[in-house]
Amino acid sequence: MSDSVRIVEVGPRDGLQNEKTPVSVEDRIAFIEALIGAGLHTIEVGAFVSPKAIPQMVGSDQVLRGVIDHVGNEFHVLVPNEKGYEAARASGARVIAVFASASEGFSRANINCSVAESIERFKPVIARAKADGVRVRGYISCVLGCPFDGEVGPQAVVDVARTLGDLGCYEVSLGDTIGVGTPLKARQLLRAVAGSVPMAKLAMHFHDTYGQALANLYAGMEEGCRVIDSAAGGLGGCPYAPGATGNVATEDVVYMLEGMGVATGVDMAKLVAATNEISRLIGRPPASRVASAMNAKGRLG
Amino acid sequence: MSDSVRIVEVGPRDGLQNEKTPVSVEDRIAFIEALIGAGLHTIEVGAFVSPKAIPQMVGSDQVLRGVIDHVGNEFHVLVPNEKGYEAARASGARVIAVFASASEGFSRANINCSVAESIERFKPVIARAKADGVRVRGYISCVLGCPFDGEVGPQAVVDVARTLGDLGCYEVSLGDTIGVGTPLKARQLLRAVAGSVPMAKLAMHFHDTYGQALANLYAGMEEGCRVIDSAAGGLGGCPYAPGATGNVATEDVVYMLEGMGVATGVDMAKLVAATNEISRLIGRPPASRVASAMNAKGRLG
Repeated sequence: MSDSVRIVEVGPRDGLQNEKTPVSVEDRIAFIEALIGAGLHTIEVGAFVSPKAIPQMVGSDQVLRGVIDHVGNEFHVLVPNEKGYEAARASGARVIAVFASASEGFSRANINCSVAESIERFKPVIARAKADGVRVRGYISCVLGCPFDGEVGPQAVVDVARTLGDLGCYEVSLGDTIGVGTPLKARQLLRAVAGSVPMAKLAMHFHDTYGQALANLYAGMEEGCRVIDSAAGGLGGCPYAPGATGNVATEDVVYMLEGMGVATGVDMAKLVAATNEISRLIGRPPASRVASAMNAKGRLG
Repeated sequence: MSDSVRIVEVGPRDGLQNEKTPVSVEDRIAFIEALIGAGLHTIEVGAFVSPKAIPQMVGSDQVLRGVIDHVGNEFHVLVPNEKGYEAARASGARVIAVFASASEGFSRANINCSVAESIERFKPVIARAKADGVRVRGYISCVLGCPFDGEVGPQAVVDVARTLGDLGCYEVSLGDTIGVGTPLKARQLLRAVAGSVPMAKLAMHFHDTYGQALANLYAGMEEGCRVIDSAAGGLGGCPYAPGATGNVATEDVVYMLEGMGVATGVDMAKLVAATNEISRLIGRPPASRVASAMNAKGRLG
């Protein structure tokens, strides 16, 4: 268990995209720079999506341009289609993320097409990325449950994951979008998917809606998974999931990993400072238990 | 993993004892009855301690008398000394809990004596309980870290656990009082202690200060532990731990167990209702992620 884990910080994109209050380009760049300063290397920084549909991500081109020259870091942007791809490339993107759902109900509600249609849509994006030497990460949402279809069987996830792998994604991130997973199911899912896509290419993207995320991550680590998506301060959520809790908090993940002897290179005090500042900007307290405890400790002196 | 787990609900004692706002005897009885109605069977209901030191537990005799006749349930009360034991017995107690620390620093700060002295103090209590046919549960605090001494090695816990087992405690509950544990350490601790006290006699009592409790419980379950202490709504805390988060929330534990195929018999809606009412009384929102999510869902309709 003590080998290394790669953290993909998704706060500036998956986090902020699902927060009510939009954050300015300038403040998003400052947030990303604070995350870099705290020791995070792989950061999802924006999405080239419709500004009408997702106003929180307006200016992602400027954000990406603002940070892209930080040496030694990797910046991801979400790209739904060729138009988005062109804009991402024009801003210097070297890694993009595409997404599909494991459940038909969520695919319909979220992007108004079937799972198969969504895959057809991003096939040309992946083809162009390949030709341009741009790496592509694949997200699968609703891997442990869907707000519309309920239970999601591992086979549905395996099918989409295999397709993403075959299409050339360097990594497939398994999203428990509404946070309904529990440890054994998370572990069984990883085992099933690893039968089609090597475990080294799988990432865990778990939300903490019901407080299960860390337990699920630990269970997934036992199964051999070594890539974790998380968001500083537990930013984000899902329009179809209840409550204010979104992505598992990077602080809480780091605390667990360090306690398990897995060095993360993250400076917790700096990370909490970054979280506090972005929390101030969006006007809600951090959803990270570690941040809350450290802030309380700070107030006690 | 799918065998049964016993939950010890500690909200009315360990939870409320560490909340700033005292709750009346009448409201505590109503809370306990709501917990029984939600399907919880083993409940820690009070403490026979100094009313000056812990005003939140004043009237524990009336609370115990008020609930003791509920058939099919087991009620625990904390007893620090012979005086407390006599009062507990006079109120009908059939199960008592004694407590010691795994760390000298916490023992000094909390009860102003060494660990060895604290054990000497409750030896006569255990002797009388034995003679009276009263069962005794033993708590060990600071098993994964101490706010004064820092790291606590497994051997210190093993020593206290063995003593409690030898003295006749039917169960030894391992308390991560300040919630600093992480999964591997929790698992290693259980393995170490189970070398001296059978696993079937061990309970996990983990606080969620840093969000680690569910992951730690899952890790402990993998090691074979099948008894979990938790508090409805995540009530409680520790005077020496930062932040508002206390015991792991019963709701979050039940969610994990049910998701793992472990039937708990708990009616989640009723449990959240009990949590909401006690949270209203103490004037703070539930620290349970499940309760928060379910309340948000309820507001959405």
